[in-house]
Amino acid sequence: MDTKQKFVTCFAPGHITGFFTIHENDYPSLKGTTGCGLVLNRGVTVKVCSSPDITETEIFLNGSKKQAPVTSHLVASLSCEPVRIESHADIPVGCGFGASGAGAMATSYCLNDLFSLGLTQNELVEAAHVAEVVGGGGLGDVEAQAHGGIVIRKRPAPVTKGGLLDRIVSPSFSVHCVALGKLSTKKTLSDSSVTGKINIAGKTAMKNLLLNPTIEEFMLQSRSFSFELGLLSKGTKDIIEAVENVGGFASQAMLGDAVFAIAGPECTDTVLREVMSEFGTVFSSTVAGTD
Amino acid sequence: MDTKQKFVTCFAPGHITGFFTIHENDYPSLKGTTGCGLVLNRGVTVKVCSSPDITETEIFLNGSKKQAPVTSHLVASLSCEPVRIESHADIPVGCGFGASGAGAMATSYCLNDLFSLGLTQNELVEAAHVAEVVGGGGLGDVEAQAHGGIVIRKRPAPVTKGGLLDRIVSPSFSVHCVALGKLSTKKTLSDSSVTGKINIAGKTAMKNLLLNPTIEEFMLQSRSFSFELGLLSKGTKDIIEAVENVGGFASQAMLGDAVFAIAGPECTDTVLREVMSEFGTVFSSTVAGTD
Repeated sequence: MDTKQKFVTCFAPGHITGFFTIHENDYPSLKGTTGCGLVLNRGVTVKVCSSPDITETEIFLNGSKKQAPVTSHLVASLSCEPVRIESHADIPVGCGFGASGAGAMATSYCLNDLFSLGLTQNELVEAAHVAEVVGGGGLGDVEAQAHGGIVIRKRPAPVTKGGLLDRIVSPSFSVHCVALGKLSTKKTLSDSSVTGKINIAGKTAMKNLLLNPTIEEFMLQSRSFSFELGLLSKGTKDIIEAVENVGGFASQAMLGDAVFAIAGPECTDTVLREVMSEFGTVFSSTVAGTD
Repeated sequence: MDTKQKFVTCFAPGHITGFFTIHENDYPSLKGTTGCGLVLNRGVTVKVCSSPDITETEIFLNGSKKQAPVTSHLVASLSCEPVRIESHADIPVGCGFGASGAGAMATSYCLNDLFSLGLTQNELVEAAHVAEVVGGGGLGDVEAQAHGGIVIRKRPAPVTKGGLLDRIVSPSFSVHCVALGKLSTKKTLSDSSVTGKINIAGKTAMKNLLLNPTIEEFMLQSRSFSFELGLLSKGTKDIIEAVENVGGFASQAMLGDAVFAIAGPECTDTVLREVMSEFGTVFSSTVAGTD
């Protein structure tokens, strides 16, 4: 047994953004999004190993070696030596479920523990946020993931840099998802015709949500936002329609070719799962409530 | 059955402050504390009932009718009609476990739901904070209770008014407590010789904690703070000494004639409980971790 090998394991939750607005800034720590989303009880588990035998940082996701620009940047910013990182996601990757943010946050917690960095939660979240922005993973997931619940991101960037988070108050409930395919966050956000639409539709959605901060309003505003953007595939539109036909609420997970849905007063979780399963594999997760 | 009677039940967690600094302000929403404390998984459950038969607001705590200035203020600020409030605390009341803050927060959540007020979490926390300040219950518990974990209150007041919270990163652990008696927060904080000591010792404790943000450092800084203040009774001193003799960490719950303690590397939770039980009834709670 190699007694010099050390490892730490951490879990971080996934996050579905319903709608958002981009706030550009030359400094990665100040760049971010406002918007609203759901933090899941499913996510990414990361194991970080250090050992004298590890001479180069290697990153594995669900068993396969990856380039992983977000995690690479995080290791470069927090780690004092090369590490081996093994991530296991029990949410779809690249489909709008905040997997890269969850991976970045769990990795920052692991590195903090493994190398006794003595950082607080806010410092770890800021490091993960910067890695996300630089690596092109996302622009607001980690702040929400660190907060939990149905998170309203009122001011962009981490709280250490002026960010402000709030929550919609709700009992716990389940969210059901079907992922049809990937959508590159980096590529989508570099298309100025899309970002222009995002910022107009995102502001309207936020304004309407704050007038009536409920989970149902969040779902309706997310739906309007996703239709305004026009990134919906034929498949996702079909699922949304099918969910609404049985009385549920559905929208597109941002940014992915995927749908998330919740039950309504006249529609149970079982019915919702049954309807959605006709279009693909349904994965479900609870959302932590706040009362 | 009276179909016009409606009720809502909510739970809010207790909170132990280890050390703090008072930030005075003429506006209750801006008055508050910085400091650090532990959010418990035990706390206060509140049931709020409304009915045409209720003509005057009545507040009951553990079965007895109370004046309850904090809750009364909250009802006056949020409720549109008289209500009957039944609170049950599974933490000691008036002994430094944040019972009034938990009661205020749970009540604000209940009122939001019962009367469909449409408030967000930040708005409910701010209302509870103001009720705490005006009613003399406390000055920083509710912000911590809404956040969870081992909360560092870096800037005073609710986040909506510029407050900034952070967390010490730690796996979950248990805290063990013995309450010997009450200490009036209102009375203690109106003694300028005590508040002067609080503000000097609180600043030192915070500075030292931020240099080494760990749970052990929090316990040591809390201990120094409580001895500087000189509010410790003979009984609480004896318990702290007994805990330290077996390798645990202990300090005074602020503000109460009570001790809280955690295990150390050479002292198990079982040993700690055994030692403490010689001085009074021990109640234990887990503290939500953040990894």
